[in-house]
Amino acid sequence: MNQTIKENTQEVISSKDLLLHYIGHRSLTRRVIEAFPEKDLFTFSIGGMRTFAQMTVELFSIAGPGLNEMVTGKTVPFDESFDHKNSKQVLLDKWDEETDRIRKLWMKIPDEQFGETLTLFGQYTGTVISSIFYFIDNEIHHRGQGYVYLRALGIEPPFFYER
Amino acid sequence: MNQTIKENTQEVISSKDLLLHYIGHRSLTRRVIEAFPEKDLFTFSIGGMRTFAQMTVELFSIAGPGLNEMVTGKTVPFDESFDHKNSKQVLLDKWDEETDRIRKLWMKIPDEQFGETLTLFGQYTGTVISSIFYFIDNEIHHRGQGYVYLRALGIEPPFFYER
Repeated sequence: MNQTIKENTQEVISSKDLLLHYIGHRSLTRRVIEAFPEKDLFTFSIGGMRTFAQMTVELFSIAGPGLNEMVTGKTVPFDESFDHKNSKQVLLDKWDEETDRIRKLWMKIPDEQFGETLTLFGQYTGTVISSIFYFIDNEIHHRGQGYVYLRALGIEPPFFYER
Repeated sequence: MNQTIKENTQEVISSKDLLLHYIGHRSLTRRVIEAFPEKDLFTFSIGGMRTFAQMTVELFSIAGPGLNEMVTGKTVPFDESFDHKNSKQVLLDKWDEETDRIRKLWMKIPDEQFGETLTLFGQYTGTVISSIFYFIDNEIHHRGQGYVYLRALGIEPPFFYER
């Protein structure tokens, strides 16, 4: 390795700190799920959009399976078939299970892998870090939508900056 | 410097790539502003929330001024007083101006500064990188809300994954 380059390079964020940032977001999203009245979680929507439960199921289908593919190298097709049984508790339990799985898988990704290119779910090609940003950003995006649903239902959402 | 540690450390994302990621988000947010009918941009809201124009003005008040403080070291109070004159073009022009400013300021932040702690606007204490993630995440959050407004108005928003 070229030591001159190495000495001038300092990471802007470590893998561990990015994981903590992500886990903070997941904690907030969990509180948004919790804030919904159970009925509205599975039925309420605006402008023909999906319910917040359906968006949550989309989130289940992306980050955990995506990280699993990064770690194991095994490609599985994209699968959004999780059965929530119209139960908030089922969603929350699955949320916690996925958070735990995400944490464990993340720790297995060596730093040098973040810049590597892969094709997730057999169809989305990009670097590992760009895919991980997609997982995080997509969660923030849908959670923001959940905030509007809550406000429309007359419910105050958790503070955005509390993680 | 401890070369053993340096040799085992590889950044998960470079400053330049994180800036490109951010600029991609800003490009998408610009298209969301553009997608609003001018009247609705300044009047439409759901559940007592702010209009998308008001959220956009909040975004003006955070990232550009925040990065300016990181680069110059000069603290200024948080200021959300931008006058949009009820004009979409005024918002879009300011958006472009801020994007350009953000890009130029970002390039002046040395890599080793990202881990340093600062108190932004005299009140928000955290590392530079955590503040920058706040700028990006807060934009994604409000843009997600803008997507719901657009859907409620019967308008198809731009694709989330197109930057």
